[in-house]
This record gives sequence, C-alpha cells and structure tokens, in this order.
Amino acid sequence: MQVWKDYQEKNKDRFLEELLALLRIPSVSARTENKNDMLTCAEAVKKGLLDAGATTATIYPTEGHPIVYGEKIIDPALPTVLVYGHYDVQPADPLELWNSGPFDPVIKDGKIYARGSADDKGQFYMHVKALETMVETGTLSTNIKFLIEGEEEVGSPNLATFVKANKALLDANVILISDTSMISMENPSIDIGVRGLSYIEVEVTGPNRDLHSGVYGGAVANPITMLSKMIASCHDENNHITIPGFYDDVVESTDIERAKMAEAPFDATEYAKDLGVQTLWGEKGYSSNERTGIRPTLEVNGIWGGYTGEGAKTVLPSKAFAKISCRLVPNQSSEVITEKIINYFTSIAPAGVTVKASEHHGGEPYMTPIDSKEYQAAASAIAATFGKDPIPVRGGGSIPICALFEKELGLKIVFMGFGLDSDNLHSPNEKFDIVNFYKGIETIPYFHQFYASSK
Amino acid sequence: MQVWKDYQEKNKDRFLEELLALLRIPSVSARTENKNDMLTCAEAVKKGLLDAGATTATIYPTEGHPIVYGEKIIDPALPTVLVYGHYDVQPADPLELWNSGPFDPVIKDGKIYARGSADDKGQFYMHVKALETMVETGTLSTNIKFLIEGEEEVGSPNLATFVKANKALLDANVILISDTSMISMENPSIDIGVRGLSYIEVEVTGPNRDLHSGVYGGAVANPITMLSKMIASCHDENNHITIPGFYDDVVESTDIERAKMAEAPFDATEYAKDLGVQTLWGEKGYSSNERTGIRPTLEVNGIWGGYTGEGAKTVLPSKAFAKISCRLVPNQSSEVITEKIINYFTSIAPAGVTVKASEHHGGEPYMTPIDSKEYQAAASAIAATFGKDPIPVRGGGSIPICALFEKELGLKIVFMGFGLDSDNLHSPNEKFDIVNFYKGIETIPYFHQFYASSK
Repeated sequence: MQVWKDYQEKNKDRFLEELLALLRIPSVSARTENKNDMLTCAEAVKKGLLDAGATTATIYPTEGHPIVYGEKIIDPALPTVLVYGHYDVQPADPLELWNSGPFDPVIKDGKIYARGSADDKGQFYMHVKALETMVETGTLSTNIKFLIEGEEEVGSPNLATFVKANKALLDANVILISDTSMISMENPSIDIGVRGLSYIEVEVTGPNRDLHSGVYGGAVANPITMLSKMIASCHDENNHITIPGFYDDVVESTDIERAKMAEAPFDATEYAKDLGVQTLWGEKGYSSNERTGIRPTLEVNGIWGGYTGEGAKTVLPSKAFAKISCRLVPNQSSEVITEKIINYFTSIAPAGVTVKASEHHGGEPYMTPIDSKEYQAAASAIAATFGKDPIPVRGGGSIPICALFEKELGLKIVFMGFGLDSDNLHSPNEKFDIVNFYKGIETIPYFHQFYASSK
Repeated sequence: MQVWKDYQEKNKDRFLEELLALLRIPSVSARTENKNDMLTCAEAVKKGLLDAGATTATIYPTEGHPIVYGEKIIDPALPTVLVYGHYDVQPADPLELWNSGPFDPVIKDGKIYARGSADDKGQFYMHVKALETMVETGTLSTNIKFLIEGEEEVGSPNLATFVKANKALLDANVILISDTSMISMENPSIDIGVRGLSYIEVEVTGPNRDLHSGVYGGAVANPITMLSKMIASCHDENNHITIPGFYDDVVESTDIERAKMAEAPFDATEYAKDLGVQTLWGEKGYSSNERTGIRPTLEVNGIWGGYTGEGAKTVLPSKAFAKISCRLVPNQSSEVITEKIINYFTSIAPAGVTVKASEHHGGEPYMTPIDSKEYQAAASAIAATFGKDPIPVRGGGSIPICALFEKELGLKIVFMGFGLDSDNLHSPNEKFDIVNFYKGIETIPYFHQFYASSK
C-alpha cells in the first residue's frame, strides 16, 4: 500500500541504522562469556518494541537467557498475530575466516555483513519496523504480539516452560516467523516445513593418559581411529544412514509432492559452483532439494582429539570427541532419534575404548498446511510485493520450538522468510541483503491485512 | 668403580640442580614462539659441556635450531665415543592435564616431573656428568665427542646437512645414545632397534565455506565424515594396515627371535591396568611386545574440524584435518612409506571433497647387531652396575637420525636408555626417576672403560 511504502521510504536509513546497532551486540547464547551481552541485547529489543509503538514490552528472566515479550492490542475482537523470533546468534568461530568483525557490521555491495544479520536479528526486526509502519500510518488491522527469545541457537531449553506457564499471554490466532529463506528475489518462496533436530556429543576414551605413539602405538586402541570408524559406519555406500530404526517413522513424500518439488528452480551446476565442490553428494535416489527438504540427515558438526597445533607431535591421545546432529522430517521424534543415535554410538564402541554420548538439544519437525488460510495470507502478501505467487518449499533448517507452539497454543505457524540460502547462516561472513530487509518490512503489513480480512 | 662412585655421591645434589635448571628452559622445537628459548638452551648445553671438562664446545647455527658440539680428546690413539642427544622437547599440550608446570620442575616421590626430564635432557645430561666424573677422577679412557641437537622432536631436518659437512669433526668409533628406556630397574634392558617414522598431515576440503548444516546438510559431502571414512579404511578387521604395499619391505622376525622376545617379562593385565583400558588392541597374530617392537603401525596423532567449542553449533564445515604417523621396522624406507600413505589418502578421496596430504618428517628404522663389541660393552656396563645382564629388546620409538649416522659416518650405534616406559614421554606429567638419573651417570663410565679395553 502506498501509504506505508511512502513512510518506509522516508525512514529507511534510520531502520537500517537501528538494525546495525542491534547487530553490534555479541549475543552468542552458547558462550557463558556473553551472558551480559545477552541482557544488553534483550534490553535493546524491549526498547525497540516500545519505540515502534508496542503498548507494553517486558523482559522475562528464565533459567538461561531472558525472553522479551511485547504487544499492541488494538481490539480484542480482531485476530491476533504472534510474531516469534530470536535475538541470540550462533558463535562466530572460526573468526579468522571473517572479512570483517562479526559484531562490527559492514555494508558492502548492498549487503549487511554481521553475525545475526539474517539469523535472526535482521529478520525479526523487520516485524518491529512493520509494526512501527502500521502504527504510524494507521494501517494496523490485527492485534500483534512479539515473543523474541534468546536461546533458539541452543535449542530453546527454557522456552517450553515459559510457553506452558503463559498460555493466556500468548493467546493468538496464528504464529508468524521470519527465520527462513527464499529461493531468490526472482523466485519468492515460502517454507512449508522445517526439519527437526537431534544433537549429540560423543566422547571416546582410550588409555587414561596421552601416550607416546612410538612406545605404545600398535598395542592400544587409538580413540581417534575408533571414533573415525564409528562415524564412518553411520552412512552406507549409498549414503543412507545405517543407525537401526533411523528411518522407521519417516513419512515418505508422495510422487505428486516430489513432482511438485522438482518444479522449483534449481541449477545443480550453479549450486555446486557456488559451494566450490566438483560434485554434489547425498542419499541415493533423491534430488538435492529432496535431500535437504524431505529426507533426514546426519552430519558431523565438529571433531577433535590429540595434537592439533603447529608441527608434529607423536602422541596416541587419551580422548577424541565429536559433535553430531541429525535433521529430522515428519513424523520423526527428536527424543526417539536422539536415543537411537546415543544407543548406536555406545553399542558399537569397539573393545579397548569407552564411549560416552550425551544430548545437546533437539527439536521436532513441523509442517504448515498449504491449504490453510494462514498460508494463503502469507502467499497473498508475497504476491502483492513480489508480483508473483511464492513457491512452497521444504526448508532444511530447524526451528525447534514450532512443534511445541502447535501443541501448547493450538496455533498454525507460517514461515515468511526473506533471507537467501547464500546468507552464510552459522558461517563466517553471514550477510543479509538490504533490499531483502526492506522488502520484508514492506510485505509484512500485507500479511496482517490479508489475514485480518480472511477471518 | 669406587673412585667415581664416591665422586658422584659427593656431587649428586649439584648434578640434580643443574638438570633442573636445564629443564626450566622451554625448548620446544615445534613452536616458533620458543625460538629464543632454543638459543638459551643451546648456550646452557655449551656451558654445561665446558664446565664438565670438555676442551671445546661450539654452537653451530643451522637453518633451524642450532647444534651444540663439544669434545674432550685425550689421545688420538684411543677410541672415540660420539654421544648423541637432543636438547629440544615435545610441545607440552594439553597443559591442563599437567599436575605442575611442564617447565617448572617438581620433585615428588623421587621423580623429576618436567617436559624433557626423560626425553632427552635428563638422559643426555647423564653423559655430561659422566664426563665430569671421568675427568675429575682421572678415569677417562676414551676420547669423547658430544653432538647435541635441537630438532630431534621435529625430525632433525638440518642434522643431515651438518653431519655430511662435518665428517672429520664427527669421526669416532661408536655412537652412544641415551634416548630410550629399559623394562624396569629390576629387569634392565637395552634397545637393539628403533622404529622408523613417516609423519604426514591430511587436509580435506569440502565446500568453500562453513555451511549451515540444516540448509545444506545431506546435499554436500561433509569433510569430517569423509576424513573419518578414510581413516577408518586404514586398518582392516584384523587391525592390519590396508595401505597398498605397506608391508612389502618388512623383514619378518624369525621364530627364534620371536621366541626370545616372548621371554622378556611382560604382564598384559598389569599393562592394561596401568593404561586404564579393559582390553589391549593390535594386529592379529602378534603379541603386545611384537606390536610395538617388530611390527609397523599407523596412528592418528591429531584430528580437528568444524565447531569444537562449548555447546552446539550446527555447522557443516569446510575443512577437516588429521595428523597421521607410521612407525616403521627394518627394512622399510621412510621415504617410500610416506609416499605410499600420501598416495593412499589422495587416491581414495571421495567425490565431493579434495584431499591434500603432505609430509611432516620421517626417519629410518635402525638395529644394533647384538654380537657387536659395541653392544657387548654396553651390556657389560649394565651388568656392572645393575648386577645382571640386560635383556635385548626392540623399542617402539624412533630416533630418525640413526640410519643417517650409520650411512654417513660408518658407525654402529648403541642405545643405553635409562628411562622407563612409564615416564610419560610426549605426554602430560613426563617424569624421570632420580635414581635412574644417578644410575645412568654411574653406568656410563663403565661403557667407556669396557669399550676402550675391547679395542
């Protein structure tokens, strides 16, 4: 609508400056050393909500990092949209691969480079600025609530307690989340599913101390070798996951669904070129999009053991470690899969080493019904600003709290993501295109308008 | 002999103090940050030699760390013993596992705890104090030369050049090295062989940047998984090494040799208990002593990749690395094996990743003929102070320069080690028993005496 487009055009520089200020706060939820930064960031989010026109905004302490809640209720008879987002970010390591400081945002070629620019500060902040737009231009057509947490990147360990204890506060008609991406600005898309997550850590112990690899080498099981063998055994020659029962609960996509997915624009050559790999990899019998969308996966996220410094050290180490996570699809259960992976690693532990495996965090998969009015409102909003209907896609990432929202609040969730796959989420040089940031702020008010009128 | 025993008894406290001073210098050859400490240590070695009665002592610069040479020539007609040792030490990591500072020597229960206490400062310094003893008591019966280098722990990259250029300087009749261990004080032994070494580093690159493991997981080869598969493939189910041609040049021990080895005292239950493992591990068909003595091995000394910090990060990393070394036995060639391992890793690189493998350093295996007069002089010296004949054993470690010494100088090498396998060489809490230090100083003059009279 012209009225909010004009308002946004006039204020766009300030919108950007405000986001940059938020990105300067190193709100890394996984690191205890950033605990105070998390509080600073929560305060900034609260202030941002109040400045944007929220009537109330509150910081709720949890056993971990605080939750920020804010609202603008204009008429209890109108539908209420609950916006969920998160102000915490992933750790910035490896620092040496960043071209600029992860918490010192730099704008280059129309892109904002900073940790959290796309995931998720830049995206939830679009909703804050959309609220301001609607308030200032008198176009707010729904009630709006904000639930911005600080523990999404560590599995939202305290959000469930908060949600269960505050059902009335969070009462709404739909949950709207911008924490996913679209195919491209030319091919707007909406994620209709997020994968679940099971994340574990494995510790393999061989001898009770680091040994001289000459004196003892050959006579004692090496925990790195044993861990490597265990990891190697997780995929067979077709890259199927071998953990017993892993695929038991997977809902296989129908041929019709798969045919529809195959229509989404995807250039395997470009994809491989962008990643700098000669060939793509994955489970036999599935396309790349299917491998990241409708199929569960197992990835090693980190491994370490022995001497990792400069030069050479002839050590047979006492311990080796790995961080391993699985992405899950409907109807897999995070709890069940976590138990299966842990059991697998402990049960295949070779003689001569002991294996401890423990859970980091998990989350359930979620899917938005494409024929729901919630999805339709989002699709119409995208069509209004992009000039074409969005393509429904299955995203590869995870938003662990979705299944809980549906269960506890009885609400449908719509994912309106304005990022791109190339945003380097969780990687060095994370970025968010400024044009996407503005496009999001312009599109979101349409969602509220279409959703209000569909009620 | 009573005369040198008396002298040593009177000076033993000073001998120990001097060693502790040497141990306080963090002479880690692998770390560039310790470059100045290496110079300081070389100066200390030079001063130690002159103080002990060497007529000359010189520091020879190399392209890496300097070599210290010293000598005491009493009569060109007498035989000359060339003592080889090294003043450099292994890195001290992981520091958090040390009970006291690695370069802040602590004496506890009659043991000196410090990096380098046994490997090799404490052991080469026995020869320095033996020289002092023989000079001061007028019992020196051979000429004596010292070659103490600073790059043994990084494969002696510059010693070959020095040896080739200084054959006259190093001219001698036998090389004597104390850089090995004995079974126990009750079961003195002499190493008649050291294993060779091939040490490589492997770098596996998948995508050109760290990726979000949800967005890309399942569609791109994970370098950690691929590296694990490659490492896992290096041993078969019998723990034989699978690298093509790896065993081609191995000289198999005869049944008689193996029967003799089996006579050495070895308690597998105690061995496993000391290491804290439930079962031992190794190549099928060989005993533990054979696995560390007469058989070549392949050990992963370090592995790293992805996120290794606190908590969880859902990353599909760009790179993974491993440090891998093989111990070699007669008649394997370090150069040939290094080439075979490098070829193996690069040739089995799965599609979707690229593999770079490069050499760290290597060394050839060496064996002392048991019927040589050099070995016999050492055995008699041990018998004189321990009261029983030593057991000849095959050691698992490597002293890369031995084969070069034999080739360039045409000399036999005798290993008179006074350490114990439990000295935690290359590990946290490295120690050297004070009683072993003194026993070495007492025994060494006997070697010179017996060797001189056998001439």
